[in-house]
Amino acid sequence: MKIAVDAMGGDHAPEAIVEGSVLAAREFNVPIILTGISHRVRQELEKYEDWKHLGIDVRHADEVVDMHDSPGKVIRSKRKSSIKIGLDLVKNGEASAFVSAGNTGAVLAYSTIILRPLKGVDRPAIAIQLPSSKGSSILLDAGANVDCKTNQLFQFGIMGHSYAKYILGNDNPRVGLLSIGEEDVKGNETTKEAFKLLKKSHLNFIGNIEGKEVYRGNADVIVCDGFTGNIALKISESLAEMIGGSLKELFKTGMTTKLSYLLLKPHLAELKKRVDYSEKGGAPLLGINGVCIIAHGSSSPKAIKNAIYRAHEFVEKKINEHICEDIEYNLDGKGSLWQHIKEIVSGSEDGSLDPEAPKDPIDPPKN
Amino acid sequence: MKIAVDAMGGDHAPEAIVEGSVLAAREFNVPIILTGISHRVRQELEKYEDWKHLGIDVRHADEVVDMHDSPGKVIRSKRKSSIKIGLDLVKNGEASAFVSAGNTGAVLAYSTIILRPLKGVDRPAIAIQLPSSKGSSILLDAGANVDCKTNQLFQFGIMGHSYAKYILGNDNPRVGLLSIGEEDVKGNETTKEAFKLLKKSHLNFIGNIEGKEVYRGNADVIVCDGFTGNIALKISESLAEMIGGSLKELFKTGMTTKLSYLLLKPHLAELKKRVDYSEKGGAPLLGINGVCIIAHGSSSPKAIKNAIYRAHEFVEKKINEHICEDIEYNLDGKGSLWQHIKEIVSGSEDGSLDPEAPKDPIDPPKN
Repeated sequence: MKIAVDAMGGDHAPEAIVEGSVLAAREFNVPIILTGISHRVRQELEKYEDWKHLGIDVRHADEVVDMHDSPGKVIRSKRKSSIKIGLDLVKNGEASAFVSAGNTGAVLAYSTIILRPLKGVDRPAIAIQLPSSKGSSILLDAGANVDCKTNQLFQFGIMGHSYAKYILGNDNPRVGLLSIGEEDVKGNETTKEAFKLLKKSHLNFIGNIEGKEVYRGNADVIVCDGFTGNIALKISESLAEMIGGSLKELFKTGMTTKLSYLLLKPHLAELKKRVDYSEKGGAPLLGINGVCIIAHGSSSPKAIKNAIYRAHEFVEKKINEHICEDIEYNLDGKGSLWQHIKEIVSGSEDGSLDPEAPKDPIDPPKN
Repeated sequence: MKIAVDAMGGDHAPEAIVEGSVLAAREFNVPIILTGISHRVRQELEKYEDWKHLGIDVRHADEVVDMHDSPGKVIRSKRKSSIKIGLDLVKNGEASAFVSAGNTGAVLAYSTIILRPLKGVDRPAIAIQLPSSKGSSILLDAGANVDCKTNQLFQFGIMGHSYAKYILGNDNPRVGLLSIGEEDVKGNETTKEAFKLLKKSHLNFIGNIEGKEVYRGNADVIVCDGFTGNIALKISESLAEMIGGSLKELFKTGMTTKLSYLLLKPHLAELKKRVDYSEKGGAPLLGINGVCIIAHGSSSPKAIKNAIYRAHEFVEKKINEHICEDIEYNLDGKGSLWQHIKEIVSGSEDGSLDPEAPKDPIDPPKN
């Protein structure tokens, strides 16, 4: 199994990416193919005496996707980018997974075009591991799908369940639906319909989760559309930044606060690390026919190493097979969800559930 | 001008409500009508020797709305509640405003039924004052309207602008639309259409605001639908709770951290107060034909006092007249927005902007 890594993506590329890849190759003994401007990548690799013995290969890519390029522009005009070359390696079987800290929109768009969604999945979703009072939770979708249909939220539930179960080792993950009230009837039109599907599924569905529950760790998987998920994630970063800034200001105000800062400093660094999800191995793109891990743009070498390990795990533990099985299970006679979807669709008069959705791309099981 | 106050609503009712009312009457010399179980309210009032000289009146209400009662149940079965009696006082002109720390859903439902939305406003919105690195911002809607139409987001922009300008004294408030990217084309179907309306309006519209900008203070008014707003608000509370909890744990770990906690304690209390929006005078329900302020359920007497002052300000500064004028301005020839709405509607093929919406309840200006 080889892992393709986008050497040119991220704020500290190629330095941090190459260093992270070297660390991963040394530690996990996993062969890596770095995609990017080959002389730049080799120049970085030469910093590590042992690199030639680590099973690291370089694949040249003419173009580099800027962090601010629009996905549309990338697809139209950057056809030889390190992102495209990396995903092509997965498509043609030379690599088993792709890791990038580059332009998320471009990785997402190219993954969907080149690798295609899994059978039974409308669109892939980005899953983020959030810290919580009790450990961590998975939130998805964190921004891949802006306007989501009911079916998609249901698929996110399945994909998050598989991630929590087969990768994070949680035997019976509690799946919650992010909404504005705990009762079944609370939420917007889409979440209210998704609630019914999730309730009928084989998942350990615990119902609606309010925003105030997110960091309490009362759900292992938190399902939402990409618009809400992205805002939830970014607003959290914004608040943490403000609180951090206020604390920093506070520590400057006088001798006593300066002293307390010195005493606390190592502990605060530890705390910051604990809640920093970017260290946790990146965000997998779930529901794609292949493995693709999106690392934070500001990834350190350690974060890249962790993301490569996570990619390796996803391949080893056959996450995609589990997702397909679980979706299949819920749509065939056993989970009987297919019947339920049909009932909801035929009973839907407000158009909130697209009557076309279940027919394609989720085909009903043929007996 | 009299202010009606729901004596029975809130976690610490009637004690905290009555105390807050007494403080407000003493400090601002504003006459108050307390609605609730009269003997309970009088019993509380008797704790204050001067209460009879403060212009405080009591209006009996047979029923108390529980914090967990559903709005539908309240409207069907609690027709003599302190909330209904208080809003009736505003409706019949005996009071100029209503303040409640009670069941938000019930206050919202009754306000809409009894007072009705302002001309040109589809539905009222809850506006929250959030702390930021540069002071504070207004976010609306914080949860009154789950599924919002384009028009409603536009109206929220106008209402937030009026709040920031006439109440908070910001001459040219920057209005931003909460979305998942800064560019015009980013967002969901509704925000993309709302972007066009807001851009054409007379507001100081600064475009999309990402979640990461919320606490940076780069917008004075942040517009979003009630689903997103409620989740943004609650997730912030959740994260603040987790960080607070982690700091508390940290302070317990050893002698040095305990010492630093003792040194920091008074400063941390000050910091907490600064970011606690519940102290800031409650959340006005904007767009209603009357003044209604929703205070936090856990309101302290000081928070109630501030909410009563805020209600007084809303009446004095004629906020509703300003909202009506601003909506009118944007829909008539001067702001020429009406023409623009028609263009968008006629050009809309995806049904995301309801073609019925601008006709009713926003009637086109008649020349």
